[in-house]
Amino acid sequence: MRLDQERWSEFDFVRHLQGAARTFSQGLQTGIGDDCAVISCGPDQDLLVTTDLLVEGIHFERRWFSLFQIGAKALRVSLSDIAAMGGAPEYAFVSLALPPSLSAREGAKILDGVRESAECYEVALAGGDLSRSAEGIVLDSILLGKTEKGTSLLRSGAEPGDQLFVSGTLGEAALGLELMKMEKEEKRWAGLLERQRSPEPRLELGRILREKGWATAMMDLSDGISIDLARLCEASDVGAVLRLHDLPASVLLRAASTALARDPASFLLHGGEDYELLFTVPADARSALEQADLPLSVTPVGEILPSDAGVWLEDPDGRRPLLPQGYDHFR
Amino acid sequence: MRLDQERWSEFDFVRHLQGAARTFSQGLQTGIGDDCAVISCGPDQDLLVTTDLLVEGIHFERRWFSLFQIGAKALRVSLSDIAAMGGAPEYAFVSLALPPSLSAREGAKILDGVRESAECYEVALAGGDLSRSAEGIVLDSILLGKTEKGTSLLRSGAEPGDQLFVSGTLGEAALGLELMKMEKEEKRWAGLLERQRSPEPRLELGRILREKGWATAMMDLSDGISIDLARLCEASDVGAVLRLHDLPASVLLRAASTALARDPASFLLHGGEDYELLFTVPADARSALEQADLPLSVTPVGEILPSDAGVWLEDPDGRRPLLPQGYDHFR
Repeated sequence: MRLDQERWSEFDFVRHLQGAARTFSQGLQTGIGDDCAVISCGPDQDLLVTTDLLVEGIHFERRWFSLFQIGAKALRVSLSDIAAMGGAPEYAFVSLALPPSLSAREGAKILDGVRESAECYEVALAGGDLSRSAEGIVLDSILLGKTEKGTSLLRSGAEPGDQLFVSGTLGEAALGLELMKMEKEEKRWAGLLERQRSPEPRLELGRILREKGWATAMMDLSDGISIDLARLCEASDVGAVLRLHDLPASVLLRAASTALARDPASFLLHGGEDYELLFTVPADARSALEQADLPLSVTPVGEILPSDAGVWLEDPDGRRPLLPQGYDHFR
Repeated sequence: MRLDQERWSEFDFVRHLQGAARTFSQGLQTGIGDDCAVISCGPDQDLLVTTDLLVEGIHFERRWFSLFQIGAKALRVSLSDIAAMGGAPEYAFVSLALPPSLSAREGAKILDGVRESAECYEVALAGGDLSRSAEGIVLDSILLGKTEKGTSLLRSGAEPGDQLFVSGTLGEAALGLELMKMEKEEKRWAGLLERQRSPEPRLELGRILREKGWATAMMDLSDGISIDLARLCEASDVGAVLRLHDLPASVLLRAASTALARDPASFLLHGGEDYELLFTVPADARSALEQADLPLSVTPVGEILPSDAGVWLEDPDGRRPLLPQGYDHFR
């Protein structure tokens, strides 16, 4: 999958990084390209490590987020990477660069937001770094977590015939951002705005799926299912078909799409930042999953196909190639 | 120690971060305020974690550093934090934000620099993140290392009566930067320029000091001994006297200082980025240390005093308070 023919994309960068990672990695179970790196840590456990670099003007705007909300969201985004492996988060580190216009006291408000999310998910804030930036806030959120040895759910485990599932509902965070941009932050859309400002990492669901052994592959939906599914297929060396009419849409998403005269399908397929889980379930685990008492709904939305089958979108008119249109933070 | 009365400094920020870290930290041995966080990892080992955020225009200028050199130095700075605990480095993560003027292909040159340092010190490059920045390069270098459980050398272990030692020679990296700024990158000063561009983390010395149990406290000299010694004294709740005439100065430092008509003492005391080790040695370990076959020289430069004695500089004229004039990256 080449996202951009003319310039290196984030994808090419990750490839280059992968090339660099092949040396000196005895204890490294999974490195670059999954939601977390998986590192051997003692006889019983694996350590999970994820970093998320958030840049003002690229990942967030101060028009729409308070300093506190920026910090709180940054940690939640990293927590979602731990959820995507089925892990338990433990330690957070925050590196922060502040522009000359912001005092360190104001920077501390960002930290207060990080701390609130940390307390909410019982994570220890264990370190960090502070610097000036030339322009804009830059925040690197680093999270360490753990799983039982060898049990992390990777992107690479999907097999042809597995059913494709998503948790919760899709498209709401992107629609929330759209409402902010259109200056339509009305009370009736509060649920959409909240999903954009304060995503909920699906830690409990991720843990259950890992412990029960119901999923073969998993990742979180950060950039939109059209691009994230392509990444899962690439990592697992499989194809897939995604059923548009099965994508879980909330009543609120449908209502706001109608009010804005926008097609809900574009938010469902390409909207980023939902931080729901995308996972694959083999035939023999499906009924146990569907009968389980889970912390949130899960919906079958497609099927894994053999490697050479490609990635398809199915709607009532038939199948067409699913083109990744999600967000690449580098372009 | 309050570095700035008017505005919050990096120090205040660290304090605020420490306040936030007191919850949910069962496995956290040492958190914010030391060179690395120390985290329990299995029955026999501790995990060391350090992050260093480097910002163009604050920590480096592209006039004086190639993209490759920026990446190579970033990792070396983090490696020095692992050395400062007496640890062994294992895994590196690099988060990179590039300004619109730089392609991802050019960003890959920064990565190539990181990779060269990683190979040099047998570290696996295990992950990272790439984004656009509004302006300038921002690079967060994250390093994980290990030590035997409970053996990390902290900043907080110094006791009154301990001798204060430094490794190698001081002031050269800061003088190298001064030469770059004055556009005097002459061949005869190559050794000083090299210390600024490519610091050598003192990993082997750090490991020996930890394994032999000769040091009670240790840190690396990143911002200048006048500010870093104040930090060690603060962490250990002790005072100290530093002997100016004993600070190890190379022939090259003296020659270049003379050529530039500058006082070498200002570089020795306040020059940052030497990445030498500052450590304290109890009386009963001193002769073993001084007789050992070490990978580089170590020099006694002062003594630890009781808490209420303050931090002093001794020169032939007597003792005066040692005022921290090193670099605070936030101011």
